[in-house]
Amino acid sequence: MKDGNPLENFAQCSLPLTRHSRVQLAHGSGGRMMNELIRNLFLEAFDNPTLNQMEDCATLVVEGKRLTFSTDSYVVDPIFFPGGNIGELAVNGTVNDLSMAGARPLCLSVGFILEEGFPMQELNIIVDSMQAAARQAGVAIVTGDTKVVDKGKADKIFINTSGVGVIEHEFVISPERIETGDCVLVSGTIGDHGIAVLSQREGLSFESPIESDTAALNGLVSAIVETAGDRVRALRDPTRGGLAATLNEFAEQAGVSIEIDESSVPVQPAVVGACELLGLDPLYVANEGKLTAVVAPEIADSVLQRMREHPLGRNAALIGEVTSSRRTFVSMRTRIGGVRIVDLPVGEQLPRIC
Amino acid sequence: MKDGNPLENFAQCSLPLTRHSRVQLAHGSGGRMMNELIRNLFLEAFDNPTLNQMEDCATLVVEGKRLTFSTDSYVVDPIFFPGGNIGELAVNGTVNDLSMAGARPLCLSVGFILEEGFPMQELNIIVDSMQAAARQAGVAIVTGDTKVVDKGKADKIFINTSGVGVIEHEFVISPERIETGDCVLVSGTIGDHGIAVLSQREGLSFESPIESDTAALNGLVSAIVETAGDRVRALRDPTRGGLAATLNEFAEQAGVSIEIDESSVPVQPAVVGACELLGLDPLYVANEGKLTAVVAPEIADSVLQRMREHPLGRNAALIGEVTSSRRTFVSMRTRIGGVRIVDLPVGEQLPRIC
Repeated sequence: MKDGNPLENFAQCSLPLTRHSRVQLAHGSGGRMMNELIRNLFLEAFDNPTLNQMEDCATLVVEGKRLTFSTDSYVVDPIFFPGGNIGELAVNGTVNDLSMAGARPLCLSVGFILEEGFPMQELNIIVDSMQAAARQAGVAIVTGDTKVVDKGKADKIFINTSGVGVIEHEFVISPERIETGDCVLVSGTIGDHGIAVLSQREGLSFESPIESDTAALNGLVSAIVETAGDRVRALRDPTRGGLAATLNEFAEQAGVSIEIDESSVPVQPAVVGACELLGLDPLYVANEGKLTAVVAPEIADSVLQRMREHPLGRNAALIGEVTSSRRTFVSMRTRIGGVRIVDLPVGEQLPRIC
Repeated sequence: MKDGNPLENFAQCSLPLTRHSRVQLAHGSGGRMMNELIRNLFLEAFDNPTLNQMEDCATLVVEGKRLTFSTDSYVVDPIFFPGGNIGELAVNGTVNDLSMAGARPLCLSVGFILEEGFPMQELNIIVDSMQAAARQAGVAIVTGDTKVVDKGKADKIFINTSGVGVIEHEFVISPERIETGDCVLVSGTIGDHGIAVLSQREGLSFESPIESDTAALNGLVSAIVETAGDRVRALRDPTRGGLAATLNEFAEQAGVSIEIDESSVPVQPAVVGACELLGLDPLYVANEGKLTAVVAPEIADSVLQRMREHPLGRNAALIGEVTSSRRTFVSMRTRIGGVRIVDLPVGEQLPRIC
């Protein structure tokens, strides 16, 4: 019987294994603290082979068919920003997570948590742009849920999207397949989304306005997989934590080191300027329409060319390679000829970026 | 270019088609206002045959195999209540939505939205009970997402769970198959969850404590499907809006009328007492571990017996039947011999009940 204080009945529960007694903003950052929370709390409790792979989406085998399944909640602030809004971000983000295993996204669910008093017109705009994004990505929104909480108990609107995709090729695209000598590609300029949101949030304006890159990458992924076949080892979209977090995840999961070349990493001049002004490093700033691909060296040029032919890969670049060292870290040859370690961010550079 | 005020660029958007200019609590109630929001905004925008069926889960056909896919966000207040907490509610709720199409739930995703400062120990308790609920239901939590928002921007913790199931029989379980003469069964006492949450929220205590009925119903559904085969027409778990909302949905989707018998509807005496005290009608109070089944008359007794043999169906009862009238409403023969209309609730009897 759990009457009285329900907490009392859980006195036997294992204590939390993280160093913090309360949730910090950085626990949602995509960096080291989030990693710690996931490993010490969620993986510990939910422990199963699919989850433990720590991919952006789960791969399920149903009657011999490989499906991908992914979820993401969106809490971006502000909800409207240059280049997009929370709705299209929510659609594109889950389409992208499904795509990074090389799957064809089939359908999405959407769960709204609305604050009482949220303007119906803004909801309408968000819903319309979700549908436009879904249409563009070729997926259907097939099921949903709506909750409303009292005014002041949520910040305007939070959106969860989950999705199901199907893998139509025979090989596995996963960081575990990364090998020494593989090439690291990025599909375009980095940092655009984070800076667009931040500039809107802080009321900054730049000479050339910076827009979010929010886009569905499933078409670009198809093009890469068509070109490279099983010689594409790993794909991931560098969202929270930016390119730095994604490369660190690759290095850790594959047990390799990665070296990138600063002068090859594409960054818009306006983003460079904004980052200098704000004291941010573009490597750590979130993207919502870019992917990093690790491919076998013999196919790198063809993949790069194919990416550049795609509207979402026009600024694609070869930015580095997987080095032979067994130490799992990411380093960068800087413009001035030095080498620096690109560490996993510890906490939050920009909270509520997606 | 969407610099400047991003809202300006949407001036052409169709205006919202609901009567309210702002979101009301009742838009998340499971009643008529939520129905209106779903039909006029979400169905209008996302329009596709799967979504338009308005089931608790979507049925997808992937390479000839029928899968179910469902999502729900949980915002229950308080997060700990007699008989459970938000975590097990989130697991059981989505397992149940997947099960109501007769599917075997395979796996879940979980998306946490955490308020900065939320106690790690409470998160640990919630996560542990999610895992316990998942294990009991025989599903794995295979993918997840964590977002943290600044203190005051969310109420402690919101959880989204989505899930995938597989339908292993050939027939379709859907309100559209309901026929005149079919029998309406309920798997046990109604109103327990809503009253348990409300009593905790309001600090009420009753002589016999009322506990939430939160439970995964997939085992009970298997037993029903095994017994009835395709003579089970429709299954649904009466959550928000209670039994009244579910029966109204059935009546509307099937284009039939349903008559239930007040004296046959099982309600715990303590829930009857609490409802009288609080001015609530148990027909409209949420359940989280009960289902309503509509079955062919010739199989009703066998199904009822099979339900009563199951631990979650011990108090199952035959509560009514589908009447011949083409008018789609739900009526109830009252204890004193009258007949009253059981309408769809308009708004929110109890906000944030799940």
